[in-house]
Amino acid sequence: MSKLKVAMIGGGGEGSFFGKVHLRAVGLDGTREVTAGVLRHDPQAAMAAAQAWGIRGFPDLSAMLKAWKKGQVELDYAVVTTPNFAHFAAAKACLEAGLPVLCEKPMTLTVSESEELARLVKKTNLPFVLAHTYTGHPMMMTAKMMVAEGVIGDVRKVESWYNQGWLSTALEKSGQQQASWRTDPKRTGISNCGGDIGTHAFVAATWVSGQAVKKVSARLNRFVPGRMLDDDFNVIGELANGGTAIITATQIAIGYKNDCGFRIFGTTGSLEWHQERAEALIVKNGGADQTFWINGGAGIPRIVSSYQRSPGGHNEDFFEALANLHTTLERKIRKRNGEKGVLEAFPHPGAPEGLAGMKFVKAAVVSSKAKGAWTKV
Amino acid sequence: MSKLKVAMIGGGGEGSFFGKVHLRAVGLDGTREVTAGVLRHDPQAAMAAAQAWGIRGFPDLSAMLKAWKKGQVELDYAVVTTPNFAHFAAAKACLEAGLPVLCEKPMTLTVSESEELARLVKKTNLPFVLAHTYTGHPMMMTAKMMVAEGVIGDVRKVESWYNQGWLSTALEKSGQQQASWRTDPKRTGISNCGGDIGTHAFVAATWVSGQAVKKVSARLNRFVPGRMLDDDFNVIGELANGGTAIITATQIAIGYKNDCGFRIFGTTGSLEWHQERAEALIVKNGGADQTFWINGGAGIPRIVSSYQRSPGGHNEDFFEALANLHTTLERKIRKRNGEKGVLEAFPHPGAPEGLAGMKFVKAAVVSSKAKGAWTKV
Amino acid sequence: MSKLKVAMIGGGGEGSFFGKVHLRAVGLDGTREVTAGVLRHDPQAAMAAAQAWGIRGFPDLSAMLKAWKKGQVELDYAVVTTPNFAHFAAAKACLEAGLPVLCEKPMTLTVSESEELARLVKKTNLPFVLAHTYTGHPMMMTAKMMVAEGVIGDVRKVESWYNQGWLSTALEKSGQQQASWRTDPKRTGISNCGGDIGTHAFVAATWVSGQAVKKVSARLNRFVPGRMLDDDFNVIGELANGGTAIITATQIAIGYKNDCGFRIFGTTGSLEWHQERAEALIVKNGGADQTFWINGGAGIPRIVSSYQRSPGGHNEDFFEALANLHTTLERKIRKRNGEKGVLEAFPHPGAPEGLAGMKFVKAAVVSSKAKGAWTKV
Amino acid sequence: MSKLKVAMIGGGGEGSFFGKVHLRAVGLDGTREVTAGVLRHDPQAAMAAAQAWGIRGFPDLSAMLKAWKKGQVELDYAVVTTPNFAHFAAAKACLEAGLPVLCEKPMTLTVSESEELARLVKKTNLPFVLAHTYTGHPMMMTAKMMVAEGVIGDVRKVESWYNQGWLSTALEKSGQQQASWRTDPKRTGISNCGGDIGTHAFVAATWVSGQAVKKVSARLNRFVPGRMLDDDFNVIGELANGGTAIITATQIAIGYKNDCGFRIFGTTGSLEWHQERAEALIVKNGGADQTFWINGGAGIPRIVSSYQRSPGGHNEDFFEALANLHTTLERKIRKRNGEKGVLEAFPHPGAPEGLAGMKFVKAAVVSSKAKGAWTKV
Repeated sequence: MSKLKVAMIGGGGEGSFFGKVHLRAVGLDGTREVTAGVLRHDPQAAMAAAQAWGIRGFPDLSAMLKAWKKGQVELDYAVVTTPNFAHFAAAKACLEAGLPVLCEKPMTLTVSESEELARLVKKTNLPFVLAHTYTGHPMMMTAKMMVAEGVIGDVRKVESWYNQGWLSTALEKSGQQQASWRTDPKRTGISNCGGDIGTHAFVAATWVSGQAVKKVSARLNRFVPGRMLDDDFNVIGELANGGTAIITATQIAIGYKNDCGFRIFGTTGSLEWHQERAEALIVKNGGADQTFWINGGAGIPRIVSSYQRSPGGHNEDFFEALANLHTTLERKIRKRNGEKGVLEAFPHPGAPEGLAGMKFVKAAVVSSKAKGAWTKV
Repeated sequence: MSKLKVAMIGGGGEGSFFGKVHLRAVGLDGTREVTAGVLRHDPQAAMAAAQAWGIRGFPDLSAMLKAWKKGQVELDYAVVTTPNFAHFAAAKACLEAGLPVLCEKPMTLTVSESEELARLVKKTNLPFVLAHTYTGHPMMMTAKMMVAEGVIGDVRKVESWYNQGWLSTALEKSGQQQASWRTDPKRTGISNCGGDIGTHAFVAATWVSGQAVKKVSARLNRFVPGRMLDDDFNVIGELANGGTAIITATQIAIGYKNDCGFRIFGTTGSLEWHQERAEALIVKNGGADQTFWINGGAGIPRIVSSYQRSPGGHNEDFFEALANLHTTLERKIRKRNGEKGVLEAFPHPGAPEGLAGMKFVKAAVVSSKAKGAWTKV
Repeated sequence: MSKLKVAMIGGGGEGSFFGKVHLRAVGLDGTREVTAGVLRHDPQAAMAAAQAWGIRGFPDLSAMLKAWKKGQVELDYAVVTTPNFAHFAAAKACLEAGLPVLCEKPMTLTVSESEELARLVKKTNLPFVLAHTYTGHPMMMTAKMMVAEGVIGDVRKVESWYNQGWLSTALEKSGQQQASWRTDPKRTGISNCGGDIGTHAFVAATWVSGQAVKKVSARLNRFVPGRMLDDDFNVIGELANGGTAIITATQIAIGYKNDCGFRIFGTTGSLEWHQERAEALIVKNGGADQTFWINGGAGIPRIVSSYQRSPGGHNEDFFEALANLHTTLERKIRKRNGEKGVLEAFPHPGAPEGLAGMKFVKAAVVSSKAKGAWTKV
Repeated sequence: MSKLKVAMIGGGGEGSFFGKVHLRAVGLDGTREVTAGVLRHDPQAAMAAAQAWGIRGFPDLSAMLKAWKKGQVELDYAVVTTPNFAHFAAAKACLEAGLPVLCEKPMTLTVSESEELARLVKKTNLPFVLAHTYTGHPMMMTAKMMVAEGVIGDVRKVESWYNQGWLSTALEKSGQQQASWRTDPKRTGISNCGGDIGTHAFVAATWVSGQAVKKVSARLNRFVPGRMLDDDFNVIGELANGGTAIITATQIAIGYKNDCGFRIFGTTGSLEWHQERAEALIVKNGGADQTFWINGGAGIPRIVSSYQRSPGGHNEDFFEALANLHTTLERKIRKRNGEKGVLEAFPHPGAPEGLAGMKFVKAAVVSSKAKGAWTKV
C-alpha cells in the first residue's frame, strides 16, 4: 500500500500553528505524507517555507494544480489551512481541478461561498472532509452511532457548549496574532466566538444528535470593551423534530481551555461527553450510569474501533482525533481509487455540515441584532 | 440555651416527604425541636398526624396561633411546608400573628401574593427565611462570599442549570402523588419545571452572583405528550449590570437526579460548583485551578465555618444544608430575643429573593408564549 | 412509637467533638433522643456539662446504671464516646447492667480487653454496635451486599487505604488536644495511625469483602521527628481464602483529609468506593463501568434503601452514616423489645469486628518490630 | 534540519503491535522517519515485513549494522522492540557498532545483562533511552521537576500502582499471543506482572521522586490457577532517604485498563497523578488543592513546554508521550552531532533506570520466595 501524497495549502506562517498540527496528523499513521505545498500567500515566502519543511514548494496554488494536472507532481489530496477568508478560493480551485480536500473550519467566510462549495462537492462527487477535529474523537463517534442506533430513543433536547478564557482581556491590542485576526471582522467575518468555537458546539449538537437546527433565538455579547466581534455566543435553537437545542460558547471564561461537550436527552436515555475528558462517554438509561471507555472496551462500535491505534485502554486524544479525519478522507480516496480491502469511512462532517454551520452562525448574528427574534437557519 | 420551639404547618401527609426532612433539619443541632403543628389540612387528620409524630397537634392554623397568643403553647417559629398553593395564607397568618417563618419554596402561587408577603415581612420586620436548601451548602455560601469579596472581579456571565429525569414519562398518569400535583396547573400555578427547579437555578445564578435578572427571553417545553405544564425550561437573561445569564432546567434528562450547579465568569476569574459534588468549589484565576473543600480547609470564610458541624474534612450534605437555613433563622430569632453571643446570620434568601423568583418564572412563561420576546422581570 | 432514650458516656469535654456528633446522629431521625449522660470523668464537670446540654446528668457511670436499675431513669442504650482507654470499662459496665451499647472505635485499648468484651457481648446477647462510621455509608453497605451476593465472584485481592495529612508536623507539641492524646502511648495504646485510621481501612477491607485477615507483614513509620507512635501504617495481609490485602494508612499526606476507600478485585468483577465521594459505587464487570448512586437509584438493595432519608438522589453523608449505625442498634433494640414491624437491621460491625481490628493492629505492630515478619492476627 | 533516520529492530510480527506504535511516535513530529529495519527474527519474514512497511529491510541485525558501517545505509538510531529476551543482544550490538538506541522495557531478561548493557552505555557514552512511555507524559515530567525543585519538600512516602484486568482469566490457554509469551518464564523471565507493569509503578515511584529503592519486602501472587508466573505484585520498599514506597501492580483487576499512577507525600506537600487522566497534576500544599493542566497552563516548566505540540489546552496522550522519548533521544543525538539550537533534553530514563528496575523486580521475586524477607535491591 503506497502512501497518499498530501499537499498543504497555507499553514507555513510563523504564527501559524495548525499547519504543523495537520503535518503531524497526516504523518501519524505512516500511510500518508505531506510531500508538497503552497505554505504561504507570498510566493517567495511559500517557497522558503516549503524548503524549511523539506517538501516540494509551489509559489501559488494555480502552479501546483497545473503541475499536478501535467503529472509533474503526485498528489492525492490537499489540506486547506489558510486564514479563514481564503478557504473558499483554495478549496474551490482544488475541487475544480479534481483534487479531494480536507478543509479547515469554518468552511468559508460567507454563507453564499459555502453554498457554492457544497454544490461543487456534490457536483464533482469528490471526497471532501471538514476539519471539525473533535468529531474525530472515538467517543464522540461512538455517541453518534449510539444515537443513530436508538440507544437513547428519540432526541428531545441537546445541550452543547464550548468554554474558553483566552480572550477575557483585550489580547488583540497586545499584537497577539491569533487574537488579532480572530477579532477582526475583515479577516474573520461576522462572528468571532460563534464562528470559531460556537460551530464546534453546533456540530456537537447536530452531528451527534442527527438533528438539524431549524431556527434560532440568540444573544451575542462583546464583553471586552472595544472588541469589534462577539466573544460570547448564546443560542436557543429548535431542532428539526421540534426538540430544543441550547448552544453556548464563550471566550471570556477565565481558566477554561477547551471545555467543549454535550448532553443529549432522549425519550429512553441520555448521553454526556466532555472534550477535556475525551476518553469517556457516559450513558444513562435509568439504571446504573454506564461509562464507556475509549479503545478496547466493551460497547465500542466496530467502525470506531477500526480507527483506533493504541494498545488497549490507552487514550487517544487531539492529534489522533484530527488524524481520524484524515483517515476518513484517506478511506474515501482509496475506495474511489478502487483499492481492495479499504475499511468503511465514518460519516464525518463534510460540505453539508460546513454549510449548515455557516447558516447557523449567520442566523444567530441576525437574531441577536433583532433582539433574539426567532430566525430561520 | 433553651431549644427553640418549632411549629410545623403541613408535611404530615402520607405522600409528603418534606415534612420529615424538615423534622430532621430542625432536630439536627439539638438547639431546636418540633413541638407543635398543623400537619394536615383536614382537622382530624391533622390531630392524628400530630399524635403519630409525638407533637402537640392543632386542627388548624388559626387555632394554633390563637393558643400561642394566649401563651398556651410556646413557639419560636413556624415551618410552612404545605402544598405550594397554601404557602401564602399560612405564611401570612403567621407573620400577622408575629411568628417568624421558614417557608418552603416557591414562596407563593402568584406574583401578587409574593409581593404582599414581601411587604408584610418588611413591615413586620420578622425573621423570614425561604427554604432554598442548596443555598445552605457551605461551598455555595463560600461562593457567594467570594464573589462579594471580588475574587473573580466583576460578573460578566452566569450559567446555572438543574437537570432531572424523573418526569421523562407521564408519571402523573400513574397516580404518583408528587408528579400529579406538580404537573397540575391548579395546584402548581403557571409553571412546573420552572417553578420547581428552575427557581433553584435562578437562585444559584442571582443569589451567588449578586446580580438580579432584569429581563428574559425564554423557551419552555412540554416534552411529554398530554402534560399540561412545562417539563423543560430555558432562559437567557440580562443581568442588572448588563451581563448575561443562561438558566436552564429540565425534568426529562433521564438518569440525572439533582444535577444543579453554576459557573460564574468574572473579569478576573471564574467559579464552578455542582450540587451533586457539593463538597468542592472550583476557582479559576488563570493559574492552576484551585479546589476549595468543605469543612476545615483553607479559604473557607469564618462565617461559613460557623455553620459547620463535622469533624474536619468530612462532607456535610443535603440535611445539613437545610439545617443551615434553620440555623440562620435561629440566629436571627435569638438575636432579636436579645440573647448574647449569637453568631452572625448568613444572608440566606428571604422574601425579596422569593418574590424575585416568582417574577422570574412569570416573565419566562410570558416570554415563552410570546415566542421568546424579551420580557421584563 | 416512643423515642428511644439514649445515655451518653463521655463526649462532654471542651476539646471533645465527637460527643456533639453523636448527639446529632441520635437526634436526626426523631426516633431517639439523648436524655441522660455522664459526659465527663470529673463528677462536677459531668454534672455541669449535662446541664449545659439540657439532659439529666450523673456524676459517674455507676450512679447512672444504679438509677436505671431502680427505674429512676429510662434508658434504652448508651453511647460510649470517652477517650479510648476508658471504652472498655464503660462498655463492660453497661453490658453487665444489661444496657445495649453503641461503642466508639477502637473498641478497647488492648486485645485482651476486646476479647473480654466480645465474650461479654456474646454471653449477654445484648445489642452492641461499633461506631465505624463509614460502614454506615449507604454505598459501602451496598458494596458489602454486592460482594455477598456474588456480584464480583470470589474475592482475590483487596486494597484499602486512609490518607490524612493533619499530623504531618509535630502538632502534638503545639498543645493541640487531639494530636496530644493520639500520639501518647499511655492514652492511645500501641498504635496511633494504625489504631485511629488503619482500623477504618481494615474494616473496609474485611467487613465489605467478607474475608478475615489471617496474617500480616507490616511496616510502620514515625515520620515526624520525636513522635512516639506510628504516623504511617502499611500492611500486606493474607486473607482467609488465601487472597491478599494491601492496607495502608497515613497521617502525613499533606492536603488529604479523609481519603478512605477500597478496591476489591474478584474473579468476575471489581468494586471501588471513596469515602470523600461517598455517593457513588463503581462496579466493573468487563463491560461498561457501572456507577451506582446513593438514594433512589437502580440497584440499591432494599435493606439499604430502608436506611435512607433524603428525597431521591440527594446525598447522605457523614452524619447520616453515623445515624445509620444508631438505626441498626435501634432496630435490634426494638426487635428485642418485641415491637412489631421493625425493619431488618443491617449487619454492621459489632464486637467481633472490634476484636479483629484490635488483633490486626497488634499483629501489625509486632510484625513491624520484627522487620515485617509474617505474623498471625 | 534533516530528518533523523531510524531503524526498527523487531516489531514486524503479525501479533506485534508495538512496532506500529513506535512507527507512529517516530513519525509524529516530522523530524524523524523510520527508513530501515530488521522487523522479524526470520530473515525472509524480516525482508517481507520491511517491504510491507515500505522501508529498507535487512535479513538480520548484523547485516544492517555492517551496511551502516560501510555507509550503505544512513542511520541515526535504532528502536529495539523485539520480544523481551532479545532486547539485550540487539541493544548491545547497536551500541558496540556505535549506534544510539531507544530500547523497549524491560531493558533485558536478566540483571547481569542489564549490568553489562549499562556498562556499555557508560563506556560508549552513546545516547540511550529506555521506552518507559508514561515518563513522556508532560504532567509526569512536570511532577519530576516539581519534586526536584522542592515543591513538596523532602520525600517521605511514595505510593505507586498499576491496575489491569486483562489476565484475570487464563487467557494464555486460549492462544492469545501477548498472554502466552508474557506468562511463559522462558520468554519473559522471572516475573510477568512485576516485569511488565510493576516496573512502570517502580519508575513512577523512583524516577519522579528522585529516590532509589534500597530494599524490598514483597508478596507476589499467581491468582489464576495453572499460571506459571506472577499476575499480582506487591512491594513495600525502603527509599534511599529512609522513606517508604508502596508499589503494587496487578493484572487481575477486572475492568481496570491502565490505571497507573502515584502519590508522593513530602514534608511540605503532596503530588498526585493518574495515567488515565494524564492531563492533570494535583498538588496539595495545605491550602486549596491546585490542579495543573497540560499544555499552556500556568506552572508548566519551560523544558516540559518545549516538548508539547498541541494548540493550548488540548491533551496530549499516549502517542505523544512515547514520541517525547524519541524527542529526548533526538535532542541528544543532534547535540552530539553538533547541531546548533538544539533544545535541552529531559532526563528521561536510560540504562541506569533500566538496571534499577531489573534489580528491583529480581529482589521482589527473591523476597516473595523468602516470605517477604527484606531483600537488598
